[in-house]
Amino acid sequence: MKVDREAALDALAGIVGAAHALTDPDLIAGALIEPRGLFRGKALALVRPGSTAEVAAVLAWCDGAGVAVTPQGGNTGLVGGQTPDESGDAIILSTRRLKAIRDIDPHADVMICEAGVTLAEAQAAALDVDRLFPLSLAAEGTCTIGGNASTNAGGVAVIAYGNARDLVTGVEAVLPNGEIVNALSKLRKDNTGYDVKGLFVGSEGTLGVVTAASLRLFPNPRARATAFVGLESPEKALDLLALARARLGGGVTSFELIARFASDITVRHGLARAPLAGDPPWSVLIEASTQIPQGFDEAFAAMLEAAFDEGVIDDAVIAASLDQRHAFWTLRESIPEAQNREGGSIKHDVSVAVGDVPAFIAEATKAVEAFEPGARVCAFGHLGDGNIHFNVSQPVAADRDAFVARWDAMNEVVHAIVARMGGSFSAEHGVGRLKRDLLARVKDPGALDVMRRIKAALDPNGIMNPGKVL
Amino acid sequence: MKVDREAALDALAGIVGAAHALTDPDLIAGALIEPRGLFRGKALALVRPGSTAEVAAVLAWCDGAGVAVTPQGGNTGLVGGQTPDESGDAIILSTRRLKAIRDIDPHADVMICEAGVTLAEAQAAALDVDRLFPLSLAAEGTCTIGGNASTNAGGVAVIAYGNARDLVTGVEAVLPNGEIVNALSKLRKDNTGYDVKGLFVGSEGTLGVVTAASLRLFPNPRARATAFVGLESPEKALDLLALARARLGGGVTSFELIARFASDITVRHGLARAPLAGDPPWSVLIEASTQIPQGFDEAFAAMLEAAFDEGVIDDAVIAASLDQRHAFWTLRESIPEAQNREGGSIKHDVSVAVGDVPAFIAEATKAVEAFEPGARVCAFGHLGDGNIHFNVSQPVAADRDAFVARWDAMNEVVHAIVARMGGSFSAEHGVGRLKRDLLARVKDPGALDVMRRIKAALDPNGIMNPGKVL
Repeated sequence: MKVDREAALDALAGIVGAAHALTDPDLIAGALIEPRGLFRGKALALVRPGSTAEVAAVLAWCDGAGVAVTPQGGNTGLVGGQTPDESGDAIILSTRRLKAIRDIDPHADVMICEAGVTLAEAQAAALDVDRLFPLSLAAEGTCTIGGNASTNAGGVAVIAYGNARDLVTGVEAVLPNGEIVNALSKLRKDNTGYDVKGLFVGSEGTLGVVTAASLRLFPNPRARATAFVGLESPEKALDLLALARARLGGGVTSFELIARFASDITVRHGLARAPLAGDPPWSVLIEASTQIPQGFDEAFAAMLEAAFDEGVIDDAVIAASLDQRHAFWTLRESIPEAQNREGGSIKHDVSVAVGDVPAFIAEATKAVEAFEPGARVCAFGHLGDGNIHFNVSQPVAADRDAFVARWDAMNEVVHAIVARMGGSFSAEHGVGRLKRDLLARVKDPGALDVMRRIKAALDPNGIMNPGKVL
Repeated sequence: MKVDREAALDALAGIVGAAHALTDPDLIAGALIEPRGLFRGKALALVRPGSTAEVAAVLAWCDGAGVAVTPQGGNTGLVGGQTPDESGDAIILSTRRLKAIRDIDPHADVMICEAGVTLAEAQAAALDVDRLFPLSLAAEGTCTIGGNASTNAGGVAVIAYGNARDLVTGVEAVLPNGEIVNALSKLRKDNTGYDVKGLFVGSEGTLGVVTAASLRLFPNPRARATAFVGLESPEKALDLLALARARLGGGVTSFELIARFASDITVRHGLARAPLAGDPPWSVLIEASTQIPQGFDEAFAAMLEAAFDEGVIDDAVIAASLDQRHAFWTLRESIPEAQNREGGSIKHDVSVAVGDVPAFIAEATKAVEAFEPGARVCAFGHLGDGNIHFNVSQPVAADRDAFVARWDAMNEVVHAIVARMGGSFSAEHGVGRLKRDLLARVKDPGALDVMRRIKAALDPNGIMNPGKVL
């Protein structure tokens, strides 16, 4: 259906107010481009509803008129899910004005946030009642709860607390026809039918718009211990993980594996200090927390001593202050920026079964070095949940553009190994536009068929975020 | 479609073998009746496929012939979901022959069990590799993993580990048309599309048959502490819960509230010993565990001392031996049997937000006593997740049948209070046949619409477990 733009704008402005149905290129430019510049689109308008009822009215109108809708939160996604295509026929529906924290209940350990609340705001609200909302990722100052829920966000604490699917206990969502689904819940146990909220979590805006979510809160830990550990290989890191989980259990909240190349470049570019005196082939940033401070530091230190005695680790430093803890995390979090400064890079957000990580890294490194001699593997990530950011920096002094132009071809090489190991080609970033074709090729046909039937059942006119996921 | 029984039996026997397509009344009688005798049905045959491929062939045949299918695991469900209707036109598809534990991976902390493995067998297999599979419920010796997944089973450790939906990381399922969906996964992070496995968990056999599930394992705790505590009111129990969670965090694995009437009848009928010298109005069975034994008993005892000092609890005994621990749990678990011996009872498996439990108990007790003077409220359950088994025993010397005949009417009274508080009328037992009409009346219309669309999309001919859930 070809849309009359003037009529569309009139109708949309009639719902959300003229001030919130924007077409001025200066005002909407930021929403049309994905943060790394990988995806750019056009839009009929940027529409900013101020309530769930307005979201419902906008969707119902679009569904009737055949106008496509791309929902957008903080616009920090890394797979182009929040960027409209180049046709200019879609609207961007921003959830940024849905800012209320509707409820926060420390008895039920649940908080209900509207979609536009940022992750950092949600974390702060939880802390105000002495609770932890454990979802944590680099974009937390900007990304929104609606986006976190829709994309099933991961981050650095999944090993202990799970990803967004584990932390979102309910959603309020609007179907393309404008029907409001209230599956918000403060209940920890509610066994009345299909997991409706789970459908919207991770559907990347292709089934409807999440307007609010109920979030699970945790006791705020009373003590925390953080160490930076040098070791010989990913195999040894796996042994350390087993040892730490046996001794500290669910208390292990982060377990980040870092290859020497990755830590070296953060230091070389002045982004971080080297935590260890030596320069080990691999390192691990391990963090644990507890409600029972008595004896915890001792147990953490004893765990590292045992690892040392058993030949699992070669060196370790325990953060003695908050500053030192921040310094460890700064190294970990500045790897992507350091990689930028090293020239072009090709990225893979993959996961395999935790026990397969060492074999995966070995095989994929060999394959990539054969594919592109001189390429430098920059592997790091969340070993504790099998999620490795298997990134590859260009050969020194190679042509950046020529290297990056081989993105898809190198992806093929790496994803073939992932597939053979039963792993995932998108551990935490989602599918979006970037990996849509890949999904169609490698996903189990039965699962894909279920997804397509659900899409057709909930969005029969296909207006929700076309060109994404399916 | 009217089915030719002879032809149907020939076809089914051709798939699973004559020995596994049963019609002999002696052999199939047990599968036709629900354990408490509340539901009885008839069946064309009891069909016992021996593999996923056979399940697929059976379903494809039934879908083509218009024969309804009621899947059944251990036949321990409490809402009639596993019982066919009285027409005799449906087959029962038993998953009991799918007994393989396909994989157990202590690195990935995942185990893959076929549907017919019992929960106790799965627990034991996990223990063999020094891991914990924490799902735990009274029927664990008989109920199966397929049933646990399909019904989103709950139990006594939800406060720490979640229910089946949190513990099942993937499923293999067969759609009504015979298509196999392989969403089994050993991955902790896989963000590639909709939550297909989540759809099957809790759908009670209405969307397809779960033939295998990947299950999440946990470190096996190194120490455990259990106490039986006397206190004045559910409000005080809530205070104790907050205090315990603040001091022991995720280590609190069970928190069972028990009304005086409930504990008294277990003792009176000789099913348990009274753990406390006094006879407090309410008691709590609290259990916590840890990977770090050093200092844990002290922290547990200090938590109870603080509760005593703050006037939260009046009395407490910590289990000094495994025997004593078992004695505490025996009391808790013999409440249903004690209630049987007290005569007729009317049951409610409900949940509200944890903080609302005291108000719910007070209001519902008042309402029930007004509705049926002399009725004795037997409230107990998982306060830690807001799930109260609000059961009501008949007045002393009243007529049992006349009392039980008012089941639906009393349910109305209690569920109205639950609904007003935003709670759930089925916290853990599911919907099945028992609560199907209730679901249609009280579920959010948007959520119900989503459920109906999904049912139509995945089971267009309506052969899967008709008359259940929707």
